Amino acid sequence: MATLPPLPARGWAAPAADAQLAPIDFQRRAPREGDVLIDIDWCGICHSDLHTARNEWHGTTYPCLPGHEIVGRVREVGPGVTAFAPGDTVGVGCVVDSCRECDACQRGLEQYCPGGTYTYNSPDPDFDHPTFGGYANAITVQERFVLRIPDGLDPAGAAPILCAGITTWSPLRAAGAGPGTKVGVAGFGGLGLMAIKLAKALGAEVTAITRSPAKAEHARRAGAHDVLISTDRDDLRRARGSLDLIIDTIPVGHPVDPYLKLLGLDGALVIVGAIEPLADSVDARLLVQRRRSVSGSLIGGLPGTQELLDFCGEHGITADIETIPVDQINAAYDAMAAGQLDFRYVIDMSTL
Amino acid sequence: MATLPPLPARGWAAPAADAQLAPIDFQRRAPREGDVLIDIDWCGICHSDLHTARNEWHGTTYPCLPGHEIVGRVREVGPGVTAFAPGDTVGVGCVVDSCRECDACQRGLEQYCPGGTYTYNSPDPDFDHPTFGGYANAITVQERFVLRIPDGLDPAGAAPILCAGITTWSPLRAAGAGPGTKVGVAGFGGLGLMAIKLAKALGAEVTAITRSPAKAEHARRAGAHDVLISTDRDDLRRARGSLDLIIDTIPVGHPVDPYLKLLGLDGALVIVGAIEPLADSVDARLLVQRRRSVSGSLIGGLPGTQELLDFCGEHGITADIETIPVDQINAAYDAMAAGQLDFRYVIDMSTL
Repeated sequence: MATLPPLPARGWAAPAADAQLAPIDFQRRAPREGDVLIDIDWCGICHSDLHTARNEWHGTTYPCLPGHEIVGRVREVGPGVTAFAPGDTVGVGCVVDSCRECDACQRGLEQYCPGGTYTYNSPDPDFDHPTFGGYANAITVQERFVLRIPDGLDPAGAAPILCAGITTWSPLRAAGAGPGTKVGVAGFGGLGLMAIKLAKALGAEVTAITRSPAKAEHARRAGAHDVLISTDRDDLRRARGSLDLIIDTIPVGHPVDPYLKLLGLDGALVIVGAIEPLADSVDARLLVQRRRSVSGSLIGGLPGTQELLDFCGEHGITADIETIPVDQINAAYDAMAAGQLDFRYVIDMSTL
Repeated sequence: MATLPPLPARGWAAPAADAQLAPIDFQRRAPREGDVLIDIDWCGICHSDLHTARNEWHGTTYPCLPGHEIVGRVREVGPGVTAFAPGDTVGVGCVVDSCRECDACQRGLEQYCPGGTYTYNSPDPDFDHPTFGGYANAITVQERFVLRIPDGLDPAGAAPILCAGITTWSPLRAAGAGPGTKVGVAGFGGLGLMAIKLAKALGAEVTAITRSPAKAEHARRAGAHDVLISTDRDDLRRARGSLDLIIDTIPVGHPVDPYLKLLGLDGALVIVGAIEPLADSVDARLLVQRRRSVSGSLIGGLPGTQELLDFCGEHGITADIETIPVDQINAAYDAMAAGQLDFRYVIDMSTL
């Protein structure tokens, strides 16, 4: 098959770790077999975008064009595409390709495929720059990695479901959270807020755990049945042993022993925010004496993400967002770096 | 019901944290409703005995009479006992009573009952000393906490099944270890050796992980398919991501990151030896990127322990032991304190 000439595209990228993001002209591949070309309407800003753009996790290749909470409409499909047609409202999350053969891929857990391609900052077989993400006017993605956005779901508010949402949905579903389950949510940023909404909609009893008393009211509005202030020893003492599951969205290394004590027999603490060494060592006694666990979970696979989008469509769940024009990206990054915000910035790509 | 006068008994106990164990005369309760009076033939020596006798975990009440790997024969039963009769070969493990009403008790996980009574060093409602364990000629125990020792199983070699065995069996069974499962066993003392034998008998492929090259041959004889030397970087590198489950029997705090790297997707490290802070913090990235977990597990409940004893009877599995007369207890403690032994001491109570 002849290779089609690439298509012109534009976006915002960081040229270096210490530089602001700025406009960039680049190219997308024209839709080939199985490809979907998407005009991007909205792209959420994830804390990972900032970490990567500023090389805080190391390993960033420049220019770096972030964005993996993408919602848009299909412009064109390549040969063999059956699930999507021009005009469909669709989403793209954190992964845009994988080997499709390994155990993880066969289980629909593409995010764990050792040969997976992330939406940005992965090697791009078609260009001499890394994969470029959603801070752009368009993207070309293999059909398997494109998601349906349900009718009636606000497309801007749906964007963060593709990362913040699925990151918390995966461990909630893996643990079977539902009626009768007592779920704690540690940390109250974009992830924590989604975790509260989703656990509540699944029928679980939700306890928000936050450092900030000022966020308690917002947590209750989002669906928390109870709020614990993590710096209040009495709060922690009264809740000791009361939870089945804690979704730990705290985005940096932190001690986990105070959270482990909140769990009962077989209780599970699932880390979804921090990907660095935890502060302090874990007291194994807390694990052994109640058969508790500390585990981690990474975003989600394609079937799980579609399940979540459909669930959000049924329950009318979207993220708490603030939309910004594209030229406010750098200001948004600065605000995010200054503290954990209890809403998600979503870029309005019509302003590009 | 009139209270029967207590029965004379004798054993070996530590009068203080810094004192050697020495003979002691004391009393056991006469069998009441549901009680089984057992003449003790054998009692394994567990590292917990040493920790408790020497107050290394704090909270020891003296005199301290350890021992929770008890095998003997029924002397007499109290009213209402239906499962046992005089002459039966029976065992007693780490727990001798529990509330029988909490969630843990109703699930047959009596070891997690918040109101449970340990075989030694728990408050004893009948005497003004703590519960006294198996370094003694006899013990009186409620029927629910007495186990059947299968015919044909060497009673001395069966004693360590009641703690070392069940401690490793519980997480193997909880994880569904069997054909197709790749199980690592970290640490090669009494627990590690039992873990290898049990995982092998369940049909799993077993990898022993030990600091000591000298123990490799013993590990293979016990059933290990492969042996990794934990100080050998090449060994660890070639095994990266290859295991489903690691039973971690290392008895002290230690870094877990090198072991986590050996686990694949959804891999679980279960700590059964250390009950203190782990050395170094856990790198959450290792948990998140492969959905791995670190958890703990405490001995086992009564149904699980009986299941294990029956399994050992079918498969002819006993511990690797060295029997000693009772006056060698202190020498055995010194040998255990000096290094992790690859056999279990079992006291011959006929020498009392």
